Amino acid sequence: MKSFSIAKSRRLRGTPYTSRIEKQGVTAYTIYNHMLLPAAFGSIEDSYHHLKQYVQIWDVAAERQVEISGKDSAKLVQLMTCRDLSKSKDGRCYYCPIIDDNAGLINDPVVLRLNENKWWVSLADSDVILFAKGLAIGNKFDVKIFEPDVDIMAIQGPKSFELMEKVFGDKIVNLKFFGFDYFEFGGDKHLIARSGWSKQGGYEIYVEHTVSGLKLYDHLFEIGKEFNIKPGCPNLIERIESGLLSYGNDIDNGDNPYECGFDKYINIDSEVNFLVK
Amino acid sequence: MKSFSIAKSRRLRGTPYTSRIEKQGVTAYTIYNHMLLPAAFGSIEDSYHHLKQYVQIWDVAAERQVEISGKDSAKLVQLMTCRDLSKSKDGRCYYCPIIDDNAGLINDPVVLRLNENKWWVSLADSDVILFAKGLAIGNKFDVKIFEPDVDIMAIQGPKSFELMEKVFGDKIVNLKFFGFDYFEFGGDKHLIARSGWSKQGGYEIYVEHTVSGLKLYDHLFEIGKEFNIKPGCPNLIERIESGLLSYGNDIDNGDNPYECGFDKYINIDSEVNFLVK
Repeated sequence: MKSFSIAKSRRLRGTPYTSRIEKQGVTAYTIYNHMLLPAAFGSIEDSYHHLKQYVQIWDVAAERQVEISGKDSAKLVQLMTCRDLSKSKDGRCYYCPIIDDNAGLINDPVVLRLNENKWWVSLADSDVILFAKGLAIGNKFDVKIFEPDVDIMAIQGPKSFELMEKVFGDKIVNLKFFGFDYFEFGGDKHLIARSGWSKQGGYEIYVEHTVSGLKLYDHLFEIGKEFNIKPGCPNLIERIESGLLSYGNDIDNGDNPYECGFDKYINIDSEVNFLVK
Repeated sequence: MKSFSIAKSRRLRGTPYTSRIEKQGVTAYTIYNHMLLPAAFGSIEDSYHHLKQYVQIWDVAAERQVEISGKDSAKLVQLMTCRDLSKSKDGRCYYCPIIDDNAGLINDPVVLRLNENKWWVSLADSDVILFAKGLAIGNKFDVKIFEPDVDIMAIQGPKSFELMEKVFGDKIVNLKFFGFDYFEFGGDKHLIARSGWSKQGGYEIYVEHTVSGLKLYDHLFEIGKEFNIKPGCPNLIERIESGLLSYGNDIDNGDNPYECGFDKYINIDSEVNFLVK
């Protein structure tokens, strides 16, 4: 298949890691939430085999956050998803289908409950911030909605646990799947979740302190040598093999959550108020 | 500058013209509204000089439409823009800044009034459909909102008038700037506006009949030989020289319409109801 260049422009935003991954051998990009997302470092087959054995660092800053805070924030987040969040807990991630008033899927983010009045919606590829703003304005909700400066770096692969333990101690190994907490590096606190867009295990670091995050990036590559660490990105072969759906590729606004096989994330019999219901 | 490939996937939608422009020599793409938008056919300088002298056909299907129809459609469209549309007319295009409740720019589309109860919002690069849906749901507006199958092909450059006259007769030469009407080709009606993302003159064909549009595309290249017709795309040099702003590049959600120099599209003293006001 013929290859075409990507025409870079400010509109296709770079990430804090872009200059690093370009030195490290990225060969192809996709665009995700108006941002560069690496799609290949040479052979996808080689990356696949490496990911299943060792550890990779991924620049997934394109997984943008919508921060929703304020008195009505829980009400707004609940209105957007068919998953019952009434018993959700601080420090936990929730995979939540976002739907419109025809039950058409708009996004399938991971929602992080920072506290009852502060949520991050960690997005697949669509401008959910505009949907949230429209709903909030129309309903006169008391909320603040914006895209925070958060750039996710993912640590994925079976060796990610040993690597992260060397930096953050054994507390991070005990973090449960889809749990998150704050961990210190170089004097800064970083929100780290046990999550990621592969089934090989690992973490996502929600970097708010850009400079500290870049130092961490370099540090992980330095101490990761013994684990055969490499740069990588969400891997097409691994994600299909693992059954991870991709919004825009496998599912889109023409599908309702049942058609996506999301039955366990649909709480149609709950008391909560969401669209369509 | 090093060049990187674009990793194609269904999420980065192709257009009806993609297979044609790839045979015709497209070398680079950008992504715009989750769709492939050609960004170069070899040298941008050569394309610039050609555009200023002759005529080009552009695959700008990535300028997606949001169709808003129904009883409250005029109210919803007006709510989203600071431009007074109360005296708008059928068959006219209006450049309309779309703003959120902080007056932050969300998009700068061309709005087409098909009739009082049916509008097309012809977008720059952001998911305005989600903003419109959110506002409509929150306000309980009686509207239908969707993305119609409309793929724009632009005919741009000083020779576009002679070329289009050969196909559609002199009625099309008399079309005023930012006016639109329906014109027949091969038994199908095509909405054509005198508009486009250059200042070299020309038209945009809002193709709803895909097969007829492809025949028209081929026909224009055939009869355009005498005008030295070539495939092209929005040209970085020409658009900057012409002072055409690009949402995401020159202006974004951090800017209000005054900061963009949009004073003449802000009707703060009008009677109409829009956000912020």
